[in-house]
Amino acid sequence: MAESEYKVKTIEWQGDEVVMIDQRLLPLEEKYIHHRTWQEVAESIRTMVIRGAPAIGVAAAMGMALAAIQSPADSYEELKRDLDTAAEGLFATRPTAYNLGWALEQQKQLYAEPDEVEAIRERLKQRSQEILDEDIAMCRAMGEHAAPLFPAGARILTHCNAGALATAGYGTALGVIRSVFARDPSIHVFVDETRPFLQGARLTAWEREQEGIPCALITDNMAGYFFKKGEIDAVVVGSYRIAANGDVANKIGTYTVSVLAKAHGVPFYVAAPTSTVDLGVPDGDAIPIEERDAAEVTHFHGNACAPSGVAVRNPAFDVTPHENVTAIITEVGVHREPYVESLAEAKKGK
Amino acid sequence: MAESEYKVKTIEWQGDEVVMIDQRLLPLEEKYIHHRTWQEVAESIRTMVIRGAPAIGVAAAMGMALAAIQSPADSYEELKRDLDTAAEGLFATRPTAYNLGWALEQQKQLYAEPDEVEAIRERLKQRSQEILDEDIAMCRAMGEHAAPLFPAGARILTHCNAGALATAGYGTALGVIRSVFARDPSIHVFVDETRPFLQGARLTAWEREQEGIPCALITDNMAGYFFKKGEIDAVVVGSYRIAANGDVANKIGTYTVSVLAKAHGVPFYVAAPTSTVDLGVPDGDAIPIEERDAAEVTHFHGNACAPSGVAVRNPAFDVTPHENVTAIITEVGVHREPYVESLAEAKKGK
Repeated sequence: MAESEYKVKTIEWQGDEVVMIDQRLLPLEEKYIHHRTWQEVAESIRTMVIRGAPAIGVAAAMGMALAAIQSPADSYEELKRDLDTAAEGLFATRPTAYNLGWALEQQKQLYAEPDEVEAIRERLKQRSQEILDEDIAMCRAMGEHAAPLFPAGARILTHCNAGALATAGYGTALGVIRSVFARDPSIHVFVDETRPFLQGARLTAWEREQEGIPCALITDNMAGYFFKKGEIDAVVVGSYRIAANGDVANKIGTYTVSVLAKAHGVPFYVAAPTSTVDLGVPDGDAIPIEERDAAEVTHFHGNACAPSGVAVRNPAFDVTPHENVTAIITEVGVHREPYVESLAEAKKGK
Repeated sequence: MAESEYKVKTIEWQGDEVVMIDQRLLPLEEKYIHHRTWQEVAESIRTMVIRGAPAIGVAAAMGMALAAIQSPADSYEELKRDLDTAAEGLFATRPTAYNLGWALEQQKQLYAEPDEVEAIRERLKQRSQEILDEDIAMCRAMGEHAAPLFPAGARILTHCNAGALATAGYGTALGVIRSVFARDPSIHVFVDETRPFLQGARLTAWEREQEGIPCALITDNMAGYFFKKGEIDAVVVGSYRIAANGDVANKIGTYTVSVLAKAHGVPFYVAAPTSTVDLGVPDGDAIPIEERDAAEVTHFHGNACAPSGVAVRNPAFDVTPHENVTAIITEVGVHREPYVESLAEAKKGK
């Protein structure tokens, strides 16, 4: 469906290969990596060739399909064993992203009952393509729901990359911005560079260039300056996992932005599909936070920018408490406090 | 005096040359630049070979002495004209740092009245060395005043580099931390990397290594995470200029840290000599904020990290309102609200 409109191909099937753009090299290089095994997909998720919760979900679903294709099994039992191994390996790659587990569950349901191995192989591949197509449709729906929330000429801050690259092709937070921009070309976007991985500088700024949305790139620590000067009217970010009470895990630095937004009376919106909402965790304290390698902080593109051997902390995510969240936008609609009720309703509505 | 105790030589006279460590190359390279003219000093201030308000003040004072040495003048009038030109050129390098203008005023007083050219030359050089020596003494005094403010085992966040490299040799904020550490080796320091110039990652982390103070380097956007987890007990930062009402201009990102500190009930201290206090500006709105080159944001230690041509905002400083400042520590003592009174008192006491 609509993904062909977008110049950015995050992930797609080419024959029996899963092809991803290497997001670590953007914007300096556009290189595509071909995956023939679930192990290769797991490695690409782990090393952030692909990132963004919805995109990770699609990658995991496709990884399961690859596992089915690569498995030499000719009995249901053998295939199930290979697929369970793949599911476990894929699940272990990124602990915070809920869509990862959600997508794996989607695939597991398709081989829960004994069936012909070839039928299961086809079903997993087909379902992974559906998850990709559905993701784009959900992102577009979020954009439609969210667009009326923004005033004319809105100056919008976003953090990290919740764009086409973070999803199957349209974007959650950046999808919302695209939808607002389609109605009102006078908007302006502040893009946090988003250290340490620089998803904002490298990916969001690059996507924005493809789409022609006016923006200014800033370092993360400049957001406060522009809030104080009254130059930011709204914030919109994506999410890796949303707890039942509306607490939002997202890329490190999101919490700080939410504190700034609250201190300056600026609305703070989260855009994410219902597949990011985890009713199984009551609040943010129960969301596992991944700590990543120190080298992400001490190096940039392989070049050291700190004394060797310096101690580092590198939490990849933080939790924004629901009190700081003005509304959560899913493909179902716009949800507000009390989130315990509105999110449960949204998941049911799905 | 005491600067020989510190391994870091920020700036010093060697014969008739002013020698600075090139802070742009640290920590990867320890290279010293020799300056024979005030124009070379001005260029080094502008390009941030040397940075930090007190260090810039010392450099400007030495630059004036170089101007006197390099001037072929043999009459007072000719020398005065050359020195006024140098003062103007040096003043234009960094608009936010108040110590710059303060140090130039110190030197201008020494040639305000007609005198023998050789006597003026000697006086300017001698005074520049005094400013350096006084700076170290003031930093030590700040440390003594501030140390009792910190609880045992304090976990202290600092932003940018207000260390030996930012001063003549001991540090303002980092000097305070040194003094606390001398009494209590169980403290722990969080170092914000401080994009875009990475003074935290490159300079503070490097100085800390020289001194053996336990620290963890984090990206700027991680501070909120650690505030929320209750892992930060106090903040201490330096300043480029303090207004009469206690509003504090400092490296970009300081304001955000102050908002986080306030939201989490954590004390926020500013350490700066009285030469940073500008009673001539009533509040932070009147402090000029320098915007620097886009390349600082789009590049990371010389390597591109954003699409070429992307629009950038790059304010080098922000203003923390006095309401967010728990206390200001100068060489005179610890000053609190109302700052209009306590800072005027401090300047008088000087």
